[in-house]
Amino acid sequence: MIIKSNIKRLLQYRLCLIKFKELGFTKIFSYNLGNEAGVSPEQVRKDFSMHGITGNKKAGYDIDSLLEIFNRLFGMDVIHNVVLVGMGNVGRALANYNNQFIGQNVYISAAFDIDPAKHKKTGVPVFSMDKLSDHIIKFKISTALITVPGIAAQEVCNQLLENGIRGILNFTPVVLKVPDNVVVNNINLSTEIEAIIYYLNQQ
Amino acid sequence: MIIKSNIKRLLQYRLCLIKFKELGFTKIFSYNLGNEAGVSPEQVRKDFSMHGITGNKKAGYDIDSLLEIFNRLFGMDVIHNVVLVGMGNVGRALANYNNQFIGQNVYISAAFDIDPAKHKKTGVPVFSMDKLSDHIIKFKISTALITVPGIAAQEVCNQLLENGIRGILNFTPVVLKVPDNVVVNNINLSTEIEAIIYYLNQQ
Repeated sequence: MIIKSNIKRLLQYRLCLIKFKELGFTKIFSYNLGNEAGVSPEQVRKDFSMHGITGNKKAGYDIDSLLEIFNRLFGMDVIHNVVLVGMGNVGRALANYNNQFIGQNVYISAAFDIDPAKHKKTGVPVFSMDKLSDHIIKFKISTALITVPGIAAQEVCNQLLENGIRGILNFTPVVLKVPDNVVVNNINLSTEIEAIIYYLNQQ
Repeated sequence: MIIKSNIKRLLQYRLCLIKFKELGFTKIFSYNLGNEAGVSPEQVRKDFSMHGITGNKKAGYDIDSLLEIFNRLFGMDVIHNVVLVGMGNVGRALANYNNQFIGQNVYISAAFDIDPAKHKKTGVPVFSMDKLSDHIIKFKISTALITVPGIAAQEVCNQLLENGIRGILNFTPVVLKVPDNVVVNNINLSTEIEAIIYYLNQQ
């Protein structure tokens, strides 16, 4: 299963709402939110109505109520532990950053690497792969970040699924094969930059 | 301007095509490609036809021809230099990784940071911000990666735009304000993980 873009838009709206709230606003119109998030007001209303969120045409949406709905939708009222596999440059950056990089309620509880030389503590403890299973069970973890070299990605993915992982943030360029009930979110920096270049080429 | 998801899908198709080619395939059907990329065959055909790409219903698409079209669309026949601003954990990881992390035809030519302590060479040379302007002109750079703390993001963005940057890969959680002709692609890891959690919560 791959992530639909409307879900990412909702998360973007949430970031904008937090910003508006910090600025002292209590109400907001789809127009303001769309402007801030870079989409049309129609798109905002469509995304909201898909999740049963309705506003008052004259008074707008109440920011606190929206944030409450979003926190519930995205499970932000509970702490989510995730694991990270692969302590190369990317893995180390994520581990060092941890609570600044990752959301306030998402923590990397541990990292794993096959190379014993990488088992020194960084921002998070680093273990060998044979500790993966126990850790996932103990901390009730369902999501993993894969930052291994591409060649090892599918094998690591299989190992994670065998241990009960159901959500994967994939930093490798490999298209992972997973069952339908597993969620994969691919982060490919080449693709992100190439998408920018595409638009610049059109201009 | 923000990146549309169909552009990201095309880039994903391209990665799949490279994989099929490496496996020895020369022809491919929308069905195979959709299966590999995690979208429906209809979506593949729709995305293709939007870019004037047509196939033969019985014989499928020719992989080499598709790759050629994609390389042209995405400007992959020329080298693209990009700059990076902010040598914190994320910036350093990107700089160290450079040519593995970034696409084969995209290079970080230099990184910039206001802190002189960070001006040691990593994977790429690191300069003070007053060198930004000259470098951008000299290397004809149009795209920048912003990896500064959120609080400095808009100011750095403004500085980049003043120096002719037209495409930004934004790693900060800040929604950047830019003119319409500037392309911003936001990478927000919290959002990427929260999107996964959303789907796991639904199950």
